[in-house]
Amino acid sequence: MQQLAVRHPTPYPIWIGRGLEVPQAPGPRAMLYDQAVEAYALGIAQRLEIPIRLGIPGGEGAKSLSVYGRVLSWLAQAALPRDTTLYVVGGGSLTDLGGFVAATYLRGVAYLSLPTTTLAVVDASVGNKTGLNLPEGKNLVGAFHPPRGVYADLEALASLPQPLFKEGLVEAFKHGLIAGDTALLAVEALAPEAPGLEAYLARAVAVKVRVVEADPTEQGERRKLNLGHTLAHALEGATGGALSHGVAVAYGLLYAALLGRALGGDDLVPLVERLLHWLKPPPPPTLPWEALLPFLTRDKKKQSHTLHWVVPLAPGELRVQPVPEELLRDCYQAWLEQVPQ
Amino acid sequence: MQQLAVRHPTPYPIWIGRGLEVPQAPGPRAMLYDQAVEAYALGIAQRLEIPIRLGIPGGEGAKSLSVYGRVLSWLAQAALPRDTTLYVVGGGSLTDLGGFVAATYLRGVAYLSLPTTTLAVVDASVGNKTGLNLPEGKNLVGAFHPPRGVYADLEALASLPQPLFKEGLVEAFKHGLIAGDTALLAVEALAPEAPGLEAYLARAVAVKVRVVEADPTEQGERRKLNLGHTLAHALEGATGGALSHGVAVAYGLLYAALLGRALGGDDLVPLVERLLHWLKPPPPPTLPWEALLPFLTRDKKKQSHTLHWVVPLAPGELRVQPVPEELLRDCYQAWLEQVPQ
Repeated sequence: MQQLAVRHPTPYPIWIGRGLEVPQAPGPRAMLYDQAVEAYALGIAQRLEIPIRLGIPGGEGAKSLSVYGRVLSWLAQAALPRDTTLYVVGGGSLTDLGGFVAATYLRGVAYLSLPTTTLAVVDASVGNKTGLNLPEGKNLVGAFHPPRGVYADLEALASLPQPLFKEGLVEAFKHGLIAGDTALLAVEALAPEAPGLEAYLARAVAVKVRVVEADPTEQGERRKLNLGHTLAHALEGATGGALSHGVAVAYGLLYAALLGRALGGDDLVPLVERLLHWLKPPPPPTLPWEALLPFLTRDKKKQSHTLHWVVPLAPGELRVQPVPEELLRDCYQAWLEQVPQ
Repeated sequence: MQQLAVRHPTPYPIWIGRGLEVPQAPGPRAMLYDQAVEAYALGIAQRLEIPIRLGIPGGEGAKSLSVYGRVLSWLAQAALPRDTTLYVVGGGSLTDLGGFVAATYLRGVAYLSLPTTTLAVVDASVGNKTGLNLPEGKNLVGAFHPPRGVYADLEALASLPQPLFKEGLVEAFKHGLIAGDTALLAVEALAPEAPGLEAYLARAVAVKVRVVEADPTEQGERRKLNLGHTLAHALEGATGGALSHGVAVAYGLLYAALLGRALGGDDLVPLVERLLHWLKPPPPPTLPWEALLPFLTRDKKKQSHTLHWVVPLAPGELRVQPVPEELLRDCYQAWLEQVPQ
């Protein structure tokens, strides 16, 4: 079992291990869970005596204003008061939605996050970010609201379909590139039952903890976590969510590596190609650059009207900067030639 | 012109006067305004060069998830970035909605509040509270998000219909009871053009500033501001919003005065009767106690499952406490006999 601690701005623990003890919060309790992990969720609900439960379908569809309204009404109908603790069990979509519900129901109640996918463990469990999608783009609405604790039980990951299991490790790979932690780049040996998984995940989470603590509200340092994400969000947006997030990020990392090479950095392209070879993702959309543009300029990470890109020059060495339009197009051309068709 | 300052947790100024200079924020600007004050709003938009504007109908209907979604999509379609400043012009519903949009669009952008009703000046402009209603009750969703500044222009109040003008002063009267500031209890001489209005409003706002600064997230002291509101929210809820907020609060204050008298306090009933005589409100619903109960227990200010009431014992002397059910019923009976039919 591994314990990490987020210290700023609000301290909370992150536990990673098999068969974790999730604490029973004092006061009223409710559970929002992904129907895909119903057995796991209800086992915990029974142990912790949580009578008020709502199961919903996971995936990006959960991050909509209409599901948000439905969950809020569920809490209101149960007349749950301000000292309620909400247990949120599921993948990143569930924890994003559940965290935003907790941030805003009665102007804020406590929540515990129980991530059940590798993606949610590595990415969504740290950073205090909660949020929803709009028809106009992903994560355009939300709040910074830290959980009281994160309980990542490897037993919950055991039932995860393999493509979903691998997807989350794309973000861990990204953390390896950001921090220059090459152990995180070796994804090939990982599997739900692999003995090294617990330590690997803790190491990946630790990178994010360090970056987020240095910059809790995403003014500077934290923008590095956006590595690969600017193109990824555009690919997801342009395909209406047909491409899964981890796969989109893997393709986004390839594009970032091409940008880095073109801007004089190390050639990280072979490293990302190895990741793609292991991931065996479905082919991405091969749209003309113009078709992606509206989705790029809607990315919320941009400062005012100038889009900044996270450019990897070497493992552990990144630059956040605007990139000339022509170079962006050239690299996109190279990307189109490199991705599986 | 009067200037007040909110210092905690985030400092911002409140200006009250005629013909105020509203500052031109650097960076992208957008304006959300109440259609009822379109001329006033567009005059400011033109002066400050705010090309992106959305006018919506005011009133409680604005505080719905569907209007919230519409406003978010409007911002997203204009591709407004994180350093945007949102100007929110209108009554309390608009500033509550606009503040919540600002709190959550891209996980938080800046906003300026330009209240155009007495109620919004006295109540909604201080306290960092933003929020929406749910079908299950008022203000059940929201966030604490301070504006960058509040600009209450008395010129915007000039076009306010008289009942609306008077309504807001019910909250000022309430502040007088809370702080023991008897000058605030003398509402009779006030009118949109009265020379004393500016100083009166500043005095009423100052009470709220002091209380909110002492308790920014509503853990203790601030619950006093709820004086008259527990019954008021139930009356509003039970009538589906047919009763305006100020009128509901006036009736709620009468009930609070009856509670205070029954619990051994001064007889504040004649004072509140004078307020009602001046206000000339429409008659309230005269429902049986049982019909109000579900709306009372859903009030979000309660601690866990015990409902606390704000009981006035004298001007400046309040107690926040549970009240035995029997006493609540007796006072409700007395209230029914006292209100206009």
